[in-house]
Amino acid sequence: MNLLETINEPAELRKLARAQLTPLAHELRHFLLDSVSKTGGHLSSNLGTVELTIALHYVFNTPHDRIVWDVGHQTYSHKILTGRREQMHSLRQLNGISGFPRRDESEYDTFGTAHSSTSISAALGMAQAAKIKGEHRHAIAVIGDGSMTAGMAFEALNNAGVQEDINLLVVLNDNDMSISPPVGALNRYLARLMSGQFYAAAKNVGKSVLPGPVLELAKRFEEHAKGMVVPATMFEEFGFNYIGPIDGHDLDSLIPTLENIKKLKGPQFLHVVTRKGQGYKLAEADPVLYHGPGKFNPTEGILPAKAGKTTYTEVFGNWLCDMAAADKRLVGITPAMREGSGMVRFEELFPDRYFDVGIAEQHSVTFAGGLATEGLKPVVAIYSTFLQRAYDQLIHDVALQNLDVLFALDRAGLVGADGATHAGNYDVSYLRCIPNMVVMAASDENECRQMLSTGYQYKGPAAVRYPRGAGIGAVIEKELTTLPIGKGEIKRSGSSVAILAFGSMVARSVVAGEELNATVANMRFIKPLDVELVKQLAQDHDYLVTVEEGAIMGGAGSAVAEALAELGIQKPLLILGLPDKFIDHGDPAALLASVGLDAKGIAASIRQRFGAAEPRLVVNNT
Amino acid sequence: MNLLETINEPAELRKLARAQLTPLAHELRHFLLDSVSKTGGHLSSNLGTVELTIALHYVFNTPHDRIVWDVGHQTYSHKILTGRREQMHSLRQLNGISGFPRRDESEYDTFGTAHSSTSISAALGMAQAAKIKGEHRHAIAVIGDGSMTAGMAFEALNNAGVQEDINLLVVLNDNDMSISPPVGALNRYLARLMSGQFYAAAKNVGKSVLPGPVLELAKRFEEHAKGMVVPATMFEEFGFNYIGPIDGHDLDSLIPTLENIKKLKGPQFLHVVTRKGQGYKLAEADPVLYHGPGKFNPTEGILPAKAGKTTYTEVFGNWLCDMAAADKRLVGITPAMREGSGMVRFEELFPDRYFDVGIAEQHSVTFAGGLATEGLKPVVAIYSTFLQRAYDQLIHDVALQNLDVLFALDRAGLVGADGATHAGNYDVSYLRCIPNMVVMAASDENECRQMLSTGYQYKGPAAVRYPRGAGIGAVIEKELTTLPIGKGEIKRSGSSVAILAFGSMVARSVVAGEELNATVANMRFIKPLDVELVKQLAQDHDYLVTVEEGAIMGGAGSAVAEALAELGIQKPLLILGLPDKFIDHGDPAALLASVGLDAKGIAASIRQRFGAAEPRLVVNNT
Repeated sequence: MNLLETINEPAELRKLARAQLTPLAHELRHFLLDSVSKTGGHLSSNLGTVELTIALHYVFNTPHDRIVWDVGHQTYSHKILTGRREQMHSLRQLNGISGFPRRDESEYDTFGTAHSSTSISAALGMAQAAKIKGEHRHAIAVIGDGSMTAGMAFEALNNAGVQEDINLLVVLNDNDMSISPPVGALNRYLARLMSGQFYAAAKNVGKSVLPGPVLELAKRFEEHAKGMVVPATMFEEFGFNYIGPIDGHDLDSLIPTLENIKKLKGPQFLHVVTRKGQGYKLAEADPVLYHGPGKFNPTEGILPAKAGKTTYTEVFGNWLCDMAAADKRLVGITPAMREGSGMVRFEELFPDRYFDVGIAEQHSVTFAGGLATEGLKPVVAIYSTFLQRAYDQLIHDVALQNLDVLFALDRAGLVGADGATHAGNYDVSYLRCIPNMVVMAASDENECRQMLSTGYQYKGPAAVRYPRGAGIGAVIEKELTTLPIGKGEIKRSGSSVAILAFGSMVARSVVAGEELNATVANMRFIKPLDVELVKQLAQDHDYLVTVEEGAIMGGAGSAVAEALAELGIQKPLLILGLPDKFIDHGDPAALLASVGLDAKGIAASIRQRFGAAEPRLVVNNT
Repeated sequence: MNLLETINEPAELRKLARAQLTPLAHELRHFLLDSVSKTGGHLSSNLGTVELTIALHYVFNTPHDRIVWDVGHQTYSHKILTGRREQMHSLRQLNGISGFPRRDESEYDTFGTAHSSTSISAALGMAQAAKIKGEHRHAIAVIGDGSMTAGMAFEALNNAGVQEDINLLVVLNDNDMSISPPVGALNRYLARLMSGQFYAAAKNVGKSVLPGPVLELAKRFEEHAKGMVVPATMFEEFGFNYIGPIDGHDLDSLIPTLENIKKLKGPQFLHVVTRKGQGYKLAEADPVLYHGPGKFNPTEGILPAKAGKTTYTEVFGNWLCDMAAADKRLVGITPAMREGSGMVRFEELFPDRYFDVGIAEQHSVTFAGGLATEGLKPVVAIYSTFLQRAYDQLIHDVALQNLDVLFALDRAGLVGADGATHAGNYDVSYLRCIPNMVVMAASDENECRQMLSTGYQYKGPAAVRYPRGAGIGAVIEKELTTLPIGKGEIKRSGSSVAILAFGSMVARSVVAGEELNATVANMRFIKPLDVELVKQLAQDHDYLVTVEEGAIMGGAGSAVAEALAELGIQKPLLILGLPDKFIDHGDPAALLASVGLDAKGIAASIRQRFGAAEPRLVVNNT
């Protein structure tokens, strides 16, 4: 660790001799493995980008030159080399450093990322700004092959290729992976580029860019290339100067190539081949398992998970298999989240009805719409935060045509370690304004299963939102039971205060309700809202409280307020939910407590608001 | 018109002899010009697709085979040939047929379109459904070169190219145009395909697909092609069988080619070259002018518009030029809507700070984010309905980082002839739940200018929403005045009822307020809401009314309801706005009246709700 400890900023890295970089990479990789195994976090992708990170900071003059890391979960080496080595122990924890780049964390984090495929657009903006301002700096987007499949990356390439005199470098970090194995035609294309056309590409570029050793390596491929027609790469068609592919773990290829590229003008495209998990045998062998592990012992590797509480993701995965067995119309769609969405078993059992469409949220929803027009029943499994990517498609292609598509919204509400970028806080607000939608929030595992069946059987667009992680341990029935649309239920009867709780807040509200002797309703449906229940609760109580794990603005409580206005009922109403700010990463329970959405916080808020007016609220139910 | 009148469904078309199709095309083109010149509507694109439409319905067995028309504004010929000839006079009018395909209008309209670049995804869903169900049918997406630049189209190509055994045909209708002239690398690529590589492409395909005459034509290009390296096209890299380019106005090329393609298996890609405005000299000469004209005399052509009321689009365009002159940090961005967004003069005056990024809403917003990180001040001009396409980018790339980007939201609220697909009804709901956003709604032209200046000077993400068309005729000041953030104003003082009006509803509410002697406030800001003003109005009045041109669910009235709950104020509240349904095309004023959002309707709703309780409301102010 002698070398690594001397690097507190990239300027110090740039003072090292070239020969010192390989040992530094070794130290860095060791540090990474040690650090991530203690905190949990993204591992495979970070092991794969050690040399690339060193090379970029070594060759380019950061932070004057700008690096934008696509997705950004591969930036641990970047963080370590830019002054955050000693904070790595706090990674993804409350008040600790983020697992993604953040502008407010470091001047080296030029653009916050976490959702895929934004880097070329952002870096192009920076490059164009430099041109407009007459500043000489490079803007570099580092993007994986998985991220490259999203349409947004193509939009940016299409736009960048015609912007002249800009110092934009796109580094394609091709590890033949997104989180799941790659799908789609582009990945096949990249594989072809990496095999037979290696030499061809190298020859196109010529000695001016490729350093000696790489060119020599390339020549060895000559036999394979003989007689081949050498097409221009797709990236050249887009107006980029294509260079590569080169070995992204070989600093003797990376550094001279980058140094040469630095001298070129116009949009440059460097194709770098890396391996996820590089240098840690267990991760190399199973990069998916080591994509984002929790804490583990690096010597033992990740042990099989102990049987714990069933997660909502598992509830969905099991329901999907059961419903598919019962109804052959069912097709399951994921935008590149097979593991995260719990669809591994579904793919095994129903390969012909399983579609991983790549990182392509927009396409996933409209593709589902097309399937629905032919009488099939698509289930789109998507995180709440990623459905934001397909919002127009949901409105224009599905809801407007009242097509029969079920959306299974995982990670609704706060998500913990991934933080604000992945929070599913807005789906209630952005979905309930859309005509024809049915929107449900699951209060426990069994109800989640029932709601999925309900949404499935409903003829039209429906969404079921459920939180990240495990539920309350409810017993899950085998039947595929449906619930009456637009009907909530009373969980406990009390007096004076009625708590109208949604989804994950129901169980916590029941605890608060016991403490306050309040009535508690599980509203179940955000849309259509159970207006009759709202009316009844309003008539029978002095105070109303709504509780939800989502943005207050435009959320479920807001729907209750609208209903009360419409009913002509004036009652004191307390709307509890997520405040109007982005909430950082941390332990989910701690985060919920911090915004007053644990049982204690809910009770305290009710007491604070209504307690003084109604003394019986401050004593426990006796 | 003898032939055209005999065609009431495509089955009748298919009975015609090949020789009759050219005269039919002639009649159809004549009918189109006559019809559109009387109703207004899309012209250039429809004149360009006459032969292609005939050929598709002639060769394929519609409606058993599915045609999905991208954007769908080019479907007038399709409508005429599928039983709607006699309804063309009602095009885009209240209770008339839509200007876009609609599933509820005809079984030949397999998928509703209007926003760009959805067709490949939808058709792929249909093709995959046919495979799953074991049905033999073709699914055909017809997509323009402009639409092909959107990322969503690439996502679909990427996914389609790896789906085997599907009968999917993508027809690229290449007219070297979106609404505005084309931009981006893909268009340059297509131009190259159309020139030197014509023969190469034809040769790749061989005699099996291309009919004799086309192949012969292709051979004539041999000299140009000699010695050229013949790359596979980008579309072949994506796993499609690429055929073309062929002349899309030549039925003798189109029909045999389509007949041959029909026999092939797997994803097919046909590149057809057409001309917008084909057959009408004036439209050929200026396809942008004839893109979507109002009524005109076909002999005279479109006459220069008489000076009418200034539209909000013009207010924006003028403001943009003035602010750009005052502040060199300003850059203007449009996703392919130069004319629609009023940026023609800006481009002329400030070409280096003007960016038409193509039909690429996602990229447009993140590109703006990148520019903002470098201290420039991007103004993204985008329709409310199209910002739905960049929702995640707005949240994740701009708002989360609190970047300094101004969104100019044109076409907020009902849009008239374009109907439900283009309605800007949801932006208030989907924007106000996002932290850091400032959201304003302009009540008149001058206020629109002030709000643009306000949002521009505000350090952070801000949006100004304004309606389609002309305003109330307010005098527009020259100064670049700003308004205090989060402050509304009282427009008139009355008693008993306070109307809290937003944006386009302010003027109508003032008229209603005069009738009822109600207080009327122009709230100006949806976020941050002027809570002090809400409080004051609630204290001084018996009844509160909110009025907005946007969805009630989660909208501005909902924000007022939340504020009242938070303030602990119980007052009768009437929330007026757009109901929870999709609203069809028609005259904007008639549509607003139909949902009770004209002055008369506002007054009537208030009387109906509060009149009985408060008799003085039913008499006029005396």
